[in-house]
Amino acid sequence: MSNAYETSKPYEELKPYMDKAMAIKTAMTLFEWDNETLAPKEAGELTSQVIGVLSGEYFEAVTCDGMRKLLKECREQGGLSEAEAANVRELTEELEQTMCIPQEEYQEFARLTARATSVWAKAKKDQDFEAFAPTLEKVIGFQKKFAGYRAKDGKKLYDVMLDDYEKGFSMENLDEFFGVLKKELVPFLKKVMEEGKKIEDGFLKGDYPEEKQEELGRFLAGYVGFDFDRGVMAVSAHPFTTNLHNKDVRITTHYTDCVDSSLFSVIHEAGHGIYELGIRDDLTLTPAGQGASMGMHESQSRFFENIIGRNRAFWVPIYKKVQEMFPSQLGQVDLDQFVEAINKVTPGLIRTEADELSYSLHVLIRYEIEKMLIEEDLDVEKLPGIWADKYEEYLGIRPENPAEGVLQDIHWSQGSFGYFPSYALGSAFGAQMYYHMKKTMDFEGLLADGGIDAIREYLKENIHQYGKLKTSRQILKDVTGEDFNPEYYVRYLKEKYTRIYDLK
Amino acid sequence: MSNAYETSKPYEELKPYMDKAMAIKTAMTLFEWDNETLAPKEAGELTSQVIGVLSGEYFEAVTCDGMRKLLKECREQGGLSEAEAANVRELTEELEQTMCIPQEEYQEFARLTARATSVWAKAKKDQDFEAFAPTLEKVIGFQKKFAGYRAKDGKKLYDVMLDDYEKGFSMENLDEFFGVLKKELVPFLKKVMEEGKKIEDGFLKGDYPEEKQEELGRFLAGYVGFDFDRGVMAVSAHPFTTNLHNKDVRITTHYTDCVDSSLFSVIHEAGHGIYELGIRDDLTLTPAGQGASMGMHESQSRFFENIIGRNRAFWVPIYKKVQEMFPSQLGQVDLDQFVEAINKVTPGLIRTEADELSYSLHVLIRYEIEKMLIEEDLDVEKLPGIWADKYEEYLGIRPENPAEGVLQDIHWSQGSFGYFPSYALGSAFGAQMYYHMKKTMDFEGLLADGGIDAIREYLKENIHQYGKLKTSRQILKDVTGEDFNPEYYVRYLKEKYTRIYDLK
Repeated sequence: MSNAYETSKPYEELKPYMDKAMAIKTAMTLFEWDNETLAPKEAGELTSQVIGVLSGEYFEAVTCDGMRKLLKECREQGGLSEAEAANVRELTEELEQTMCIPQEEYQEFARLTARATSVWAKAKKDQDFEAFAPTLEKVIGFQKKFAGYRAKDGKKLYDVMLDDYEKGFSMENLDEFFGVLKKELVPFLKKVMEEGKKIEDGFLKGDYPEEKQEELGRFLAGYVGFDFDRGVMAVSAHPFTTNLHNKDVRITTHYTDCVDSSLFSVIHEAGHGIYELGIRDDLTLTPAGQGASMGMHESQSRFFENIIGRNRAFWVPIYKKVQEMFPSQLGQVDLDQFVEAINKVTPGLIRTEADELSYSLHVLIRYEIEKMLIEEDLDVEKLPGIWADKYEEYLGIRPENPAEGVLQDIHWSQGSFGYFPSYALGSAFGAQMYYHMKKTMDFEGLLADGGIDAIREYLKENIHQYGKLKTSRQILKDVTGEDFNPEYYVRYLKEKYTRIYDLK
Repeated sequence: MSNAYETSKPYEELKPYMDKAMAIKTAMTLFEWDNETLAPKEAGELTSQVIGVLSGEYFEAVTCDGMRKLLKECREQGGLSEAEAANVRELTEELEQTMCIPQEEYQEFARLTARATSVWAKAKKDQDFEAFAPTLEKVIGFQKKFAGYRAKDGKKLYDVMLDDYEKGFSMENLDEFFGVLKKELVPFLKKVMEEGKKIEDGFLKGDYPEEKQEELGRFLAGYVGFDFDRGVMAVSAHPFTTNLHNKDVRITTHYTDCVDSSLFSVIHEAGHGIYELGIRDDLTLTPAGQGASMGMHESQSRFFENIIGRNRAFWVPIYKKVQEMFPSQLGQVDLDQFVEAINKVTPGLIRTEADELSYSLHVLIRYEIEKMLIEEDLDVEKLPGIWADKYEEYLGIRPENPAEGVLQDIHWSQGSFGYFPSYALGSAFGAQMYYHMKKTMDFEGLLADGGIDAIREYLKENIHQYGKLKTSRQILKDVTGEDFNPEYYVRYLKEKYTRIYDLK
């Protein structure tokens, strides 16, 4: 027999343990933000010591006897609310993942990756893959070993890794997903390049003063709905989003001489930020109070960046204002020219600079290679060659050195295998939602009338507010009424670029 | 019998406890900085929850059984290095001060002061002392009770409070100090105002664009030796300095239409910052790795602001550059006019806007009133009247409302009684050092030759590097060869202002 009092008791006792873990995590988030945006350059070493102590305290907080005992009691007694159950589930998963790795090995790995990112950065600078290869091999060795510890019921190692970033999407799903992309988009990209009209975008590059770019960025972030009373925008080497809680969300950007670079990075990060701002008050500052998954987060940032931000209708009510901000650069460029330019397809070597159409092919290449590294014991020495061959095959260009090839991304040096696919999944989630939303609202009509708030509210209502209460797969089903279907993404890209490039 | 191994053992075991306390404290410092400079306006409530949890963890870290046991063992075994002994002493004092107050009372007080600052802010805005009086009475009640718990050997309550900010300076010392100031400076200030020449400073106010003020501020901070590779400068409502460690020191300023306001606030905060940057590497991130005392800190900030920054010789090598930065504002103002203007004496009602000469009289008034409140049970209702009478007597002006009178400072609402005297003590410490330094170096000659580095190095060598290894009183003795002597401060002010005001 149990009554309400009894069932809630272990969760009430769990709360201070959870609050402690979240407080330490929030402090580490603030240190990370500060480090990327403001901290003086010589601060690193000593601040790392402080963060090291806090990490140890965080580890202790999530694995201590009290936490373990109370989580067990919560699971056994049941009777938890949806949010409580989600927190117990998240903490239990974190506990299990942390505890099944011997602490000495984990610390050895932490030391290795701390060094590995520097080794990678230097190798990239020197265009010298050989200098990185032995370190990469060790990182892969650890990741495979750790995945082995965590694998249950004969699960494959790469599936264990994929689960960390996108629960419920296994190699089986991704083989199908990327198979469709490869079959459809590789030839379509070729067609765009060979048969599409020529698009002029030279005016996006030039004398775009930083302070004017910042003014534009703040205007656009606010326009799409990033609330500056609950958020801030700063500058960092690589744009990112972070948050302390749903009343303090932070985005960064960077400025180059290409105005579209900061412009779309701001809308992209604002998309991430709007997700975090939309999480329910009763979830924020708890383990369930974060975006559902990497892919779902990326779906929102890319939804804002591409489906909204690169949509002609989006610019209808505001392009005049943008022209007024840059009279000498854009005064003579009409709306259609501008929209074509920001959608120009230029297959390149660098993922982070990719256009919307070729983007997922960059991810496809990484997925195929990660599978080979983890499941087929690919010799790392062969990476540069395989990388170059795949770029030539899928994108029609071949890197001339590893800095613009296999060394371009930081992820592998940090041990993040299984992360890349979520970038492409996110785009595909967004496209599936887009076609569903078009059935329930006049999407482009709203944008053209400046009614973007209704779109944002729909996303908040159906996705953002839930945090981790649902998996990304469940959210997708609840929003669109069907399981994940990659055809929408292919359809979206083909329709859009057939139109823009006047294809037959 | 003990050997090196045995004596060092408890300290080695103590270190992780100490590191944990310091890491949490450093995190709280970063939250505070962030809150004052950047955090979005709606973040406060949730971030306070996080800080509340961290405060609890800090309390736990400094009072836990392991800490208590190991501190006791360290004290008993002895054989500690100077730095180790200082850390044990600092931690022991913090422990004792924390432990002798019943936790429920401490939490009740924390809740009261959290509310009290808002009550104070509103009362100040409404110019309504009555609205603050009952809260202030409660705060005083708690502070007296707490001081009672902590008082040893019949020590008086206000002496207990004074000890928190300036160890070794009791009412006996301060009565003498402030007695000298009152006797000498009250009539001297009258004389300056009545017999001194008229000084024109209108040109310091006007069209000083914020970005040019920032440029000037960064130049001056760097010129006096604030190292931007180990420090940052930002904007906040009230200028302050904070630090994570000696490789990350942060100052703020604010901008008004009076250029000297931000200019001297930057030099003042840079002085605080240079102190923290100068603390030895083996002390930073330990309890002894902070400035010796409030007064010693203030001595350095005011030394940079006044003894250096308001010195004619300081401006000799750089005034031309300042004129070039503000050609329309200062182009026609020669060096002597500028130096006179930045030293103009204008007795006013607001302490934070006071000139160098009248400053300590503002502090004198607060000292006399605090003594009455704590030791003589002065009825708080009588404060506005007593405050106004003292301002009229010492400074020749009378506040017309409590916002420019007794409600101007935040300190009492936070329970900080005994803090104010350290502002005046700091100025006096600085003057005593100044006369000593003049015996060992050509102080003004160095400044006029742009050789400020030698002065800063002297301060680092003799003061900054030690952190809390010595008390302020000991530092003063070691630097100047004599105990604290307030006559130097009086002499400094009289010589300086007799010269500037052409007094007979």
